[in-house]
Amino acid sequence: MADVSRRRALGLLGAGAVGAGVAGLGVTGVRAATDPAPSAPVVPFHGAHQAGITTPVQGHLHFASYDVTARDRAGLVALLQRWTAAAEALTAGREVGRDGAVGGPALAPPEDTGEALGHDASRLTITVGFGPSLFDGRYGLADRRPAALADLPRFAGDALRPERSGGDLCVQACADDPQVAVHAVRNLTRLAAGAAAVRWAQLGFGRAASTSAAEETPRNLFGFKDGTANVLADDDAALDEHVWAAAGDGADWMAGGSYLVARDVRMVIETWDRTSLQEQELVVGRTKGEGAPLGRTSERDPLVPSELPLRSHVRLAHPDNHGGARMLRRGYNTVDGTDGVGHLDAGLFFLAYQRDPRRAFVPVQRALARDDLLGEYLRHVGSSLWAVPPGVRPGQWLGQSLLG
Amino acid sequence: MADVSRRRALGLLGAGAVGAGVAGLGVTGVRAATDPAPSAPVVPFHGAHQAGITTPVQGHLHFASYDVTARDRAGLVALLQRWTAAAEALTAGREVGRDGAVGGPALAPPEDTGEALGHDASRLTITVGFGPSLFDGRYGLADRRPAALADLPRFAGDALRPERSGGDLCVQACADDPQVAVHAVRNLTRLAAGAAAVRWAQLGFGRAASTSAAEETPRNLFGFKDGTANVLADDDAALDEHVWAAAGDGADWMAGGSYLVARDVRMVIETWDRTSLQEQELVVGRTKGEGAPLGRTSERDPLVPSELPLRSHVRLAHPDNHGGARMLRRGYNTVDGTDGVGHLDAGLFFLAYQRDPRRAFVPVQRALARDDLLGEYLRHVGSSLWAVPPGVRPGQWLGQSLLG
Repeated sequence: MADVSRRRALGLLGAGAVGAGVAGLGVTGVRAATDPAPSAPVVPFHGAHQAGITTPVQGHLHFASYDVTARDRAGLVALLQRWTAAAEALTAGREVGRDGAVGGPALAPPEDTGEALGHDASRLTITVGFGPSLFDGRYGLADRRPAALADLPRFAGDALRPERSGGDLCVQACADDPQVAVHAVRNLTRLAAGAAAVRWAQLGFGRAASTSAAEETPRNLFGFKDGTANVLADDDAALDEHVWAAAGDGADWMAGGSYLVARDVRMVIETWDRTSLQEQELVVGRTKGEGAPLGRTSERDPLVPSELPLRSHVRLAHPDNHGGARMLRRGYNTVDGTDGVGHLDAGLFFLAYQRDPRRAFVPVQRALARDDLLGEYLRHVGSSLWAVPPGVRPGQWLGQSLLG
Repeated sequence: MADVSRRRALGLLGAGAVGAGVAGLGVTGVRAATDPAPSAPVVPFHGAHQAGITTPVQGHLHFASYDVTARDRAGLVALLQRWTAAAEALTAGREVGRDGAVGGPALAPPEDTGEALGHDASRLTITVGFGPSLFDGRYGLADRRPAALADLPRFAGDALRPERSGGDLCVQACADDPQVAVHAVRNLTRLAAGAAAVRWAQLGFGRAASTSAAEETPRNLFGFKDGTANVLADDDAALDEHVWAAAGDGADWMAGGSYLVARDVRMVIETWDRTSLQEQELVVGRTKGEGAPLGRTSERDPLVPSELPLRSHVRLAHPDNHGGARMLRRGYNTVDGTDGVGHLDAGLFFLAYQRDPRRAFVPVQRALARDDLLGEYLRHVGSSLWAVPPGVRPGQWLGQSLLG
């Protein structure tokens, strides 16, 4: 199926009516079978960096953490090679495998699960990372663990649940169509059978952060704009300084990669909603409507930490207080129904990419955990840290610089 | 805020920078403040029937079930009046309350939670229903319960969880933007404080069913098209026969309303994915690629039950086997992360509107529960039944025909 898009597949393969002995070409309402292009909109999979980091934030997230169960290093390598081939296909809007969902033998399980048939690529990106536990010695990687992948400290107020934290491998699938993101994780999980099993997973929506100045800054579930001061995808100097790991940083195999901190942050929505507008703005340090720094008029007006309330969120998180440290954030809003006692089970799945968490997330979160007024309305219930290796060129596979 | 859209609100109210004593008009990237139109795309709230039934299925669902805690009937009526006013505003892309998220007094909690600021109406519909338990006598409604709202029987294989079933009131919020659907349920829940509390809630995505022949039939998480033979929104004769309750049906206050069956159906995804293509198609009774009835070529080819495998899903569910009974289905795909043992916690939130469940859902589900081969891959864990009253005209309120 390597050259056939999901939309074209329907036209070519039509009625795979094997059960009743009918074979014929179906008539479909989707793209004509003569269109050879991969189904747009496509984010290129190959490159110096993995896609899904500086990619303008898509509408939907499906994030999965895996425990590796492969017997040996060869099994881990084979898994990463399968994932690479599948990610190449999926991000181009193609199906998994040679035969996809309906082109294979009738008596075999389909290679692709099929729920994305007729959906285009929807800007799908698949980003893979390695957790600290992968370097525990099972796969001969004990001496390859980057210093920057140091375990996160325990922060004040953390209420972490082990079943929502950690993992050996992660997949961050982002797309503008939730069915496409879900399809990607589901099929990568299938391909992992016998080599890795899902430890936890999280869906999100709504672009809780922006990586482009052209996009309107989205709002989190507190109703505030979130991500105004983000590292922007076209600011190469800032990316090189704050996001991409470099060869001289201590782990050469990570050059061109980045470190991802993922935090499952639940919001105490009902308490927040009973707080006055003034209190909300003092806690955040910005106005709710425009998102301007308090005392200023516009969202993009300069934010001068010393002008803001001492324990306000944006003052405490400001780079000036942390040696200029910045992160590229691309978190998502989460709502998982109710919490069982009538409250919305909602929050933020915080995703931040950085060159070295010891100089970015860790000091910032330490300050926030200690003093941030917003902390009263937040509960950190999940935490994980990932070394996201560099991107791959055609013919290479994910993690080759570490395991090749 | 009754005449101000969420997009316009930003321009008008801009920086509500009360905390720092600055008042001024903000500059925003959204719709100009001079545009007086409610933000499109808008589905009209008023009408003979509630919106959200025949409305072409939106991309996202947030469904909530509530236990009513109001002290008396007046409290219940006041809640429904508050919900009506809020639904009028929200479905037009406006904020809740007179002052919205940022226009009110600084020392009061904002009337609107604000996370939909800058989002348009996104075809939001809000549909309200009454559960059987509302007619238990607390509110003087014991003799108004429609016969068609008879408790559903227990079906073979049901694994219902009380905390995912039932309720006194429901809100079905559908929109093309998940943040808009979530914002609607959250703000209606706030307005219910002291009168009703969330019992359970479910998010969904992906249009698991179509109510328009022009839309491509969407796929469920088994990878099959789902909803080909649905009642279509423009088929007035079929709607009158199968979907809308009529004055002569036994409960005059329900004339123009409909009965909703909501089922939380979890799919045993991993087992399904290991089943052969032939087996999958025999179980469903349609081809996977095109969605044609087995033995036919195209999705819309006639489906002749006697030509299909005896226990196939579409044969058993076919109206010919149930006295011609049909339902308008508008279910959504659900994925709630993992089930804790490495499997995808995924399924279908089945939503079906009908004139009388005793002649539609009940006999169909009885047949499916007994014989459907697909049942091996399904687990019904939640169930609820709702009398969805008729639509309202300007000046009326939801449920007025029952409680007015």
